[in-house]
Amino acid sequence: MVKQERAVRTRKALLGAAADGFSREGYAPASLLDISRQAGVTSGALHFHFPTKAALASAVMAAAAQRLREVVQRCETRTRSGDALQLLVDVGHELTLAMREDAVLRAGFDLDGDPGCPRGIGEVSSFLGRWITATLDRADRAGELRQGLPADQVARAVFACTVGFQMLGRRDPAWVSRRMQTRFWALVLPQIAAGHRGLDAAGS
Amino acid sequence: MVKQERAVRTRKALLGAAADGFSREGYAPASLLDISRQAGVTSGALHFHFPTKAALASAVMAAAAQRLREVVQRCETRTRSGDALQLLVDVGHELTLAMREDAVLRAGFDLDGDPGCPRGIGEVSSFLGRWITATLDRADRAGELRQGLPADQVARAVFACTVGFQMLGRRDPAWVSRRMQTRFWALVLPQIAAGHRGLDAAGS
Repeated sequence: MVKQERAVRTRKALLGAAADGFSREGYAPASLLDISRQAGVTSGALHFHFPTKAALASAVMAAAAQRLREVVQRCETRTRSGDALQLLVDVGHELTLAMREDAVLRAGFDLDGDPGCPRGIGEVSSFLGRWITATLDRADRAGELRQGLPADQVARAVFACTVGFQMLGRRDPAWVSRRMQTRFWALVLPQIAAGHRGLDAAGS
Repeated sequence: MVKQERAVRTRKALLGAAADGFSREGYAPASLLDISRQAGVTSGALHFHFPTKAALASAVMAAAAQRLREVVQRCETRTRSGDALQLLVDVGHELTLAMREDAVLRAGFDLDGDPGCPRGIGEVSSFLGRWITATLDRADRAGELRQGLPADQVARAVFACTVGFQMLGRRDPAWVSRRMQTRFWALVLPQIAAGHRGLDAAGS
C-alpha cells in the first residue's frame, strides 16, 4: 500500500472510532487514547492527523455534513422531478435509515447538541434546517402546499420534529424507525399537501 | 438560622449551581469544585448532601420533573375545564416560559439528552411524553380532535416537536420564544381540532 492510501485509511478509521466514542460517551468524556486504540493506530498517528480533540470533532462534523448532502442528493436524483413534498418525505426516510447505519452522520447530529463540544463547528443540523426551508418554499411556489399555509412555519415544525425524533432515538430506537417516519408523514401530508397528489408517506 | 433551614438553603443553592454547570458544560465536564464554589459552600458540604456526581444529577432531574409537574398543574387549574387541546397549548407556552427562566427545569431536559450522563435517571422528557399522549387521548375521547386523526400519532409529533424546539433553543433562543410557540400552535390547531372551537394559539 502506498503512503497516501495508508493515510486515507488511517484517517477514515479515526473518524469512525471518534464518531463512536463521541456519540456513546459525549465529546468531553471521550478519550483520545481509546479512540486511537479502537481505530487500530498509535496515539502519535492520531495526533498527526488531528492535533486536537476539537480538530477531530470538527472533522467528524464536516464528514457528517458531507454524508447528509449525499443523502439529499441521492433522493433528489431518484424522486420524480418537481415534487418537492415527496422529496421531503423521501429525505426523511433516507435520513432515518442513514442515521441508523452511519455512525459518522449520527455523531454529527449528536455533537451539534452536545454542550461539552466547542461551539461554532456545528453545521449538520443547520444544513438540514436550511434544506427543509428551501424545499418547502419550492413546494409552496409550485402550488404543492395547501393554500394559506405559511411554508416557513411548516418548515420550522418539520425541522423541529426531525431534530426531536433523532434526540429521542438516542434512548429508544423506535423513534428513528421506518415505521415511525411513515406514520409521521401519513399524519402530516394530508394536512399540508394541496389536493390529492398521490404522495407516498412510505417514501417513493 | 436553625440547622435544618440552612441545610435546605444549601441544598437549593447546590441544585441551582449544578443545573447551571450541567447545562453549560455538560454532565461529564462539569466540575464539582466549581459547582460548590458557585453555590458558595465548601466541597465537603457538597459531598455531605450529594455523595456522587450522579446523585447530584439525579437530584437535579428529580427537581426538574417536579417543576414540570407544577407547570402542568398550574395550567390545569387555569385552563377552562374540559378543553384538552387548549390545555396542551397552554402547557406549551408555560413550559417555554419556564424553560427560559428556570435553570433547574432546563438542566433536567439537557441531562436527559446528555450522552455523558448515567442512564436511567431521566424522567423529565418521559413525563412530558406521557402527559402529551394522555392529554391528546382525552381530547380524542371528548371529540375535540378531527375525526380520523390518530391521537397517538399526533401526540408523538407534538412531543418530538417540543423536544426539538428545546434542543434547537440551546443554540438559538428564538426557538424557545412565545412567538415561536404561538406560530406553531396557529399552524397545528386548525389541522387537528374538530370544527371551530375558539382555541387560542397564544394561550388562554
